[in-house]
Amino acid sequence: MKIDINGAKLDIESDVHLKQEARLWHETIMAEKKPYTGWANLPMNLDEAFFEKIEKTAKEINRRCDLLIVIGVGGSYLGAKAVIDALNGSVSGYPEVLFAGYNMSASHLNYVIKKLEEKNTCLCVISKSGSTLEPLLTYSILREKMREVYGDAGSKERIYVITSKDSGKLRQEVEEFGYPSFEVPDNVGGRFSVLSAVGLLPIAVAGHDIRALVNGAKDMALDSKWSDSLLDYAIVRHRMKAEGKKLEIFEYFEASLRYFGEWLKQLFAESEGKEGKGTYPSSLCFSTDLHSIGQFLQQGSQIFYETMIRIDNSKHDFIIPETAGEPYAGKTLEDINTCSEEGVIRAHMQAEIPMVIIQLNKLDEYNLGKMIYFFEMSCAISAYLLGVNPFDQPGVEDYKREAKKLVADLDKK
Amino acid sequence: MKIDINGAKLDIESDVHLKQEARLWHETIMAEKKPYTGWANLPMNLDEAFFEKIEKTAKEINRRCDLLIVIGVGGSYLGAKAVIDALNGSVSGYPEVLFAGYNMSASHLNYVIKKLEEKNTCLCVISKSGSTLEPLLTYSILREKMREVYGDAGSKERIYVITSKDSGKLRQEVEEFGYPSFEVPDNVGGRFSVLSAVGLLPIAVAGHDIRALVNGAKDMALDSKWSDSLLDYAIVRHRMKAEGKKLEIFEYFEASLRYFGEWLKQLFAESEGKEGKGTYPSSLCFSTDLHSIGQFLQQGSQIFYETMIRIDNSKHDFIIPETAGEPYAGKTLEDINTCSEEGVIRAHMQAEIPMVIIQLNKLDEYNLGKMIYFFEMSCAISAYLLGVNPFDQPGVEDYKREAKKLVADLDKK
Repeated sequence: MKIDINGAKLDIESDVHLKQEARLWHETIMAEKKPYTGWANLPMNLDEAFFEKIEKTAKEINRRCDLLIVIGVGGSYLGAKAVIDALNGSVSGYPEVLFAGYNMSASHLNYVIKKLEEKNTCLCVISKSGSTLEPLLTYSILREKMREVYGDAGSKERIYVITSKDSGKLRQEVEEFGYPSFEVPDNVGGRFSVLSAVGLLPIAVAGHDIRALVNGAKDMALDSKWSDSLLDYAIVRHRMKAEGKKLEIFEYFEASLRYFGEWLKQLFAESEGKEGKGTYPSSLCFSTDLHSIGQFLQQGSQIFYETMIRIDNSKHDFIIPETAGEPYAGKTLEDINTCSEEGVIRAHMQAEIPMVIIQLNKLDEYNLGKMIYFFEMSCAISAYLLGVNPFDQPGVEDYKREAKKLVADLDKK
Repeated sequence: MKIDINGAKLDIESDVHLKQEARLWHETIMAEKKPYTGWANLPMNLDEAFFEKIEKTAKEINRRCDLLIVIGVGGSYLGAKAVIDALNGSVSGYPEVLFAGYNMSASHLNYVIKKLEEKNTCLCVISKSGSTLEPLLTYSILREKMREVYGDAGSKERIYVITSKDSGKLRQEVEEFGYPSFEVPDNVGGRFSVLSAVGLLPIAVAGHDIRALVNGAKDMALDSKWSDSLLDYAIVRHRMKAEGKKLEIFEYFEASLRYFGEWLKQLFAESEGKEGKGTYPSSLCFSTDLHSIGQFLQQGSQIFYETMIRIDNSKHDFIIPETAGEPYAGKTLEDINTCSEEGVIRAHMQAEIPMVIIQLNKLDEYNLGKMIYFFEMSCAISAYLLGVNPFDQPGVEDYKREAKKLVADLDKK
């Protein structure tokens, strides 16, 4: 992994004060002096007993079923989906992992139920508070379906719960029915929870190496050569705001990173978007989105900077046939994709668009773990530099409160 | 369909000059006095012979296959995909329509080839210029596969081409192999082409009513009660820029509108994003994205306005079981979704976020046609008000030029 901030064209070395401030926030977070900073040392704190419990449960699920339906929304599904998708889905021979409960779409739920009925299925419901509307409604519907298909006793062996230690509706379910359960640590918020059981259980079920994932994060956290990169990126982000940039565009040429982009959007939008502040995060998948947003980037309103994730090589490949003509025939699709990627970088550099490049030599568990921790820590530092608390989300209650009143009013009709 | 701009809280009536300017641009476009304005009268100009030819071809494809692979990128696939997805995919008994050629992802292409080999397949390749890289490379690979599976003669009967009348590589293919073909009208650009054969053939193959779609657009174009709405929305968009808004956020609670959002993003980004101008378009699918971007919208940097697409009712529905508890038990998922929608509107209004609401009584072909024309025309007028040409995209050549040099250099290695 390489972090290249030169394309941002900022002299950040001379800003000793800002660097010092960033360093202090980094130390404050690592020392867990603020609430909800438990994620910072999580990769170091996960012990052998924890990994063994996750792996044992994953094996049990693998033995029992072909399909694991994971119910969760926001931070309770985006991290696991980002990692599983980036690794091209489940490893052959491991259960398919299907996500649900992140919307209230009846057609999506119909699709999930059809799969539940067709396949040998387990269910895993994830909500820290145990009270989030979409997953809880979806769970109430899917639990009934599981009982119809597997009976009361059978469904008890096939439902897993990940929630907070001692409160909420889901914890009550665990106590009442004895479902196997995992805890979301109290001091870790949803969008920072992918390296807890929240992300690790589904990722392990899909057959991926969770120890490598956590090791990547651990190396990013502990190796001093990375701490400068963490600070630099946070400082670039902060300076970009001062330069008038309103948007950060995360971009990648690897289509399987789409949900990694969604995970990044939640991480940054919820951590920074408060008190009238924050950089709006957008994510684009190239080359597809070059044919829709490319024109705007190249010549439109320069209100953004770009953070590109590059990956050196792809596993699959195609030789382009003779009929495609010169100069493409005989080359691989990946060759051409790499030329497009490099072409975009050159054209955007010529247009003086500020760009940070994060380069991975391979898209695997270890590098994903590194990237996850890199973005979590830079995001938290950025938010503190901005003067906001990275770990709350007071604004999301506003629409929920209004919606709740309206649901109560339905009875009066 | 209802267009409500009151939530934008702008006094646009008093701005007589701007309204007059918008009206003049509307008239100029309708009179096709500028290049590439052929889309403005397209719904009125499509004659019975055109519909019969599309419908006959769609029937032929339906008789021949279970799967139509449509190869195209940007404006050559987003419109058709937006409409087919919004209508929940193909009608039962009609071929599945699968899109390809919009990226250079080897894993996506592997998936498409697997489907091609499993199912009885036809191919439709769409590119106005006949020279766009991604669809042409994909076509060169899939044409070989079609020949492997169906032989030279068989594949000739299963390949359809939509391209410009008399130039480009695809037109040569039509002449050489006699593939059935349709034209992209010269005076209609890619992102405005959904109501030509480009969008209508795939939509007809999927079993949807293309005459209703075109009729919706025609009513939007001709009924004078709509022309005010078109102008109003263009003026609101223009005024929002003057008020310092940098982003337009398109949002909807209906998950099947995701690609309609992608279509909107291309339409606005490519039409306006030039000469250092333009509003950055973003699209969000609620309630999912309320759990990632919701916090930013409610309390973050107020650099955006919202355009919400509301739909009165959904066809599918679920009763929420007793176990979900009060106040949700016994209500439908759609009831709760509607309360969330209304809750968001109230909470965002309280936060004084400017909001335009486009309300449909039903998500069907007719209303989609209306919306498509509404956005196309408002977008073109907005771009002219901004002082840019809505119908070119000079910036997309920059990275392509760089990429081409790099591809040529590959041979030297």
